Amino acid sequence: MSAPPSRDLPPTIEWAGDHVRLVDQRRLPAELVVVEVRQVADLCELIGALAVRGAPALGAAGAMGVALAVVRGEDPAEAAAQLRATRPTAVNLAWGVDRALASADPVAEAVAIAAEDVATNRAIGVYGAPLLAAGARVLTHCNAGALACVGYGTALGVIRAAHEAGTPLHVWVDETRPLLQGARITAFELGWLGIAHTLLPDGAAGSLFRAGRVDAVVVGADRIAANGDVANKVGTFPLAVLAHHHGVPFYVAAPRSTHDPATPDGAAIVIEERDAEEVTMLGGTVVAPHGVAVYNPAFDVTPSALVTAYISEEGVERRRT
Amino acid sequence: MSAPPSRDLPPTIEWAGDHVRLVDQRRLPAELVVVEVRQVADLCELIGALAVRGAPALGAAGAMGVALAVVRGEDPAEAAAQLRATRPTAVNLAWGVDRALASADPVAEAVAIAAEDVATNRAIGVYGAPLLAAGARVLTHCNAGALACVGYGTALGVIRAAHEAGTPLHVWVDETRPLLQGARITAFELGWLGIAHTLLPDGAAGSLFRAGRVDAVVVGADRIAANGDVANKVGTFPLAVLAHHHGVPFYVAAPRSTHDPATPDGAAIVIEERDAEEVTMLGGTVVAPHGVAVYNPAFDVTPSALVTAYISEEGVERRRT
Repeated sequence: MSAPPSRDLPPTIEWAGDHVRLVDQRRLPAELVVVEVRQVADLCELIGALAVRGAPALGAAGAMGVALAVVRGEDPAEAAAQLRATRPTAVNLAWGVDRALASADPVAEAVAIAAEDVATNRAIGVYGAPLLAAGARVLTHCNAGALACVGYGTALGVIRAAHEAGTPLHVWVDETRPLLQGARITAFELGWLGIAHTLLPDGAAGSLFRAGRVDAVVVGADRIAANGDVANKVGTFPLAVLAHHHGVPFYVAAPRSTHDPATPDGAAIVIEERDAEEVTMLGGTVVAPHGVAVYNPAFDVTPSALVTAYISEEGVERRRT
Repeated sequence: MSAPPSRDLPPTIEWAGDHVRLVDQRRLPAELVVVEVRQVADLCELIGALAVRGAPALGAAGAMGVALAVVRGEDPAEAAAQLRATRPTAVNLAWGVDRALASADPVAEAVAIAAEDVATNRAIGVYGAPLLAAGARVLTHCNAGALACVGYGTALGVIRAAHEAGTPLHVWVDETRPLLQGARITAFELGWLGIAHTLLPDGAAGSLFRAGRVDAVVVGADRIAANGDVANKVGTFPLAVLAHHHGVPFYVAAPRSTHDPATPDGAAIVIEERDAEEVTMLGGTVVAPHGVAVYNPAFDVTPSALVTAYISEEGVERRRT
């Protein structure tokens, strides 16, 4: 079967000779806007405002920020400090900054980091695509797509690679409360790429499993512990339990760099709790009583026993049989 | 242990001599406003606008609408037709209308319907409260509280009865996307009653189970089939699977009138799908791509095998052991 037509997304972030171009994700899903960034301070502001987000994309952004300082004749060390301060807990941002700073040619290093990310994701897609059968109905959560990376995506990269290989698919998109990355970004990406999809409230996924309408779950990962436990966006673990209960495979697609041998298991992963307002406010409207206590963890942990296989740029590693 | 102080909520809807008083739930959680209704047309408008909702509350509203026509010397049959047309699929609304219309004294019948609902819920609370141990952390979904009924509540009635008996509790409140009845109404009720609680996105419940922080789940029901399968607000079934996976009891609190012997099992329950805009719009803001396909079922079905016990005004019926 020949591959269906598919528009490519512009790179989430790219080096354009002497400046940076990036997709302003605050404007999604209403419009796809690429902005040009020529000042380190402007890039810092965009990172802080979440115009660019996602661990791999932030790694490239950090490196490109140092590159910007170099081409403008500014002090790279000072730029590095400013960049790191925008998202102090974003490990990949600091990693990208440090890698460019340590290089004899920060511009070439930034370009290399971006290219490596896309190559890694394409390899994840190549290995993962055969796991999805023709006609598969695939559930995903949050956004592990091109817009979380420099390009192509991890979990969505697997789906996209299957689509580009001619495998007909339908993607179920969890909206992913509270920040709605599924509704805002994943649904946008799939629409842009021409991949059939349906958006749903997170709580409705159970009904799809029960009706036999989910053939596979594919999600990304923020960190994978040495024992295979997976930290990912909150709401991932309930999907793993539903998949297990219904005998549906549960795949985790993430680069090897996400595997953290220094973390023995999920219990060792500290889960960031986020602001109550993400839950109590919707688009400026108060939707919960004033002062209500809120539990709003950013991530949850899925134990390795519930993972069917891990897909990385090195291949597919099966756990559950 | 003595009962802690507890404010009672005003009745969701009540007959006040020659008119109706009801809580305008559109104003929650910002403010608790009781409106007086003297015209059948005004009551119809309030029902249509969801100022009053919840099956038992709508039953009383229907009967009180007929009573309004009677005290105003208007045609009860015409009022009945107008009332039924406001929410044509609300079975309890038509049931309340018909019961008042068939009575020799519609006013007395409306008052009786309201009193019966509160008495039923208090009995559910009496039977259910002993299932919750001191210190229990109880998860609930949607709103099966006083504001879904004429008063006291079903699932929240169980929690409230335990609280009033002096049992210390903490309630985990699922926000309940897409319409956020948990955030808007359940959190409001618990705050008003002085019962400790924490609001969470639906996807975060899994983390609480995994951390051993949920001792029981108590939910209401929209319909219970002859075999015990339970239709309730979408997102209930995933909680039942999580509870089963973690060995946590899962209780369904609902009056006997919710048990429907004419429906053999969950497969026979038709699930209403609701407007896409409930998912794609938040407080006037578009959060998903234009024209995206949406799966937005109002309810899901929990198989009886996942239900630990059913709590009704007649007692506790255990299924799972």
